[in-house]
Amino acid sequence: MKQKNIVFIAKSIDGFIAGKNGELDWLHAIPNPENNDMGYFNLMEEIDAIVMGKTTFETVLGFDGDWPYSKPVFVLSHSLKEIPEGLKAKVTLLYGSEIELVKKIHDLGYFKLYVDGGRVVQNFLKADLIDELRITTMPIVLGGGFSLFDILPNSLQFKHLKTEVFLEEVVQSHYERVK
Amino acid sequence: MKQKNIVFIAKSIDGFIAGKNGELDWLHAIPNPENNDMGYFNLMEEIDAIVMGKTTFETVLGFDGDWPYSKPVFVLSHSLKEIPEGLKAKVTLLYGSEIELVKKIHDLGYFKLYVDGGRVVQNFLKADLIDELRITTMPIVLGGGFSLFDILPNSLQFKHLKTEVFLEEVVQSHYERVK
Repeated sequence: MKQKNIVFIAKSIDGFIAGKNGELDWLHAIPNPENNDMGYFNLMEEIDAIVMGKTTFETVLGFDGDWPYSKPVFVLSHSLKEIPEGLKAKVTLLYGSEIELVKKIHDLGYFKLYVDGGRVVQNFLKADLIDELRITTMPIVLGGGFSLFDILPNSLQFKHLKTEVFLEEVVQSHYERVK
Repeated sequence: MKQKNIVFIAKSIDGFIAGKNGELDWLHAIPNPENNDMGYFNLMEEIDAIVMGKTTFETVLGFDGDWPYSKPVFVLSHSLKEIPEGLKAKVTLLYGSEIELVKKIHDLGYFKLYVDGGRVVQNFLKADLIDELRITTMPIVLGGGFSLFDILPNSLQFKHLKTEVFLEEVVQSHYERVK
């Protein structure tokens, strides 16, 4: 398959990607002395571009250090007006329906997409545009926050590809959409 | 630890234990020609008694065949008035707070408990009374239904014990509460 939309995201046991007050510290609570990247480097090699929403974009902008992505980034937002000057070569602002967005990105020559951010993932799932789920589960029940999944119009069947345990604590399962 | 409350339950990738209309068929959608019990037999050997709510009890009553449990069953319900005549030796009706319920069951000599059913699991988690989570994930995004997890007053840290893949499709992770 030439085109593929991949979700790569971490959640709590109870399915939250951020805590009640946006906390993300629990994502880094497991000691990782050798900086195991848990499949992130392979993903980055595999994809052509990254698709994210405004919240994820603004979260990444808030991180210390240089811009972290070597692949083109598409930010999906109706409300964001402009990309910061220094990032205009690396980041493109888009809006529209999910199907239109994917078509625009394909038309620009990018076919293997890393789809990131809670709302964007939910909207792509609603439009049945996710081909692969790579979900990393951290060993905590957060008890509230921003949920990875939302209500969908239809069930989506997936095929389990593989499951790996990292650092003895972190479980990552890969699933492929079956239509 | 002499006493232990264990959850053993199957969910969809998106955390539902039953579909929008109570559907459970997706739990049995993966071909299982050799009837792999996925840890159920070991659990039954390990426990002293089973704790469930009214909905789970009534679901089990609706199954074809004999009563399926060899261990004593405690049904937690405020609304259920009576246990069917033929089951009175095997099933006990209880009500009260989760802490009171566990104390009553301990006083009867049962210490290793299998805690089953959506609402009961949620209430036990709210009271921080779950010592072990054994969660089986089926390869489907249901898109709605009855959620395994509910909002909690506090986050609960767990330790990952093991993860197994059954039938190439079904992922089961065991977690132990860390206090």
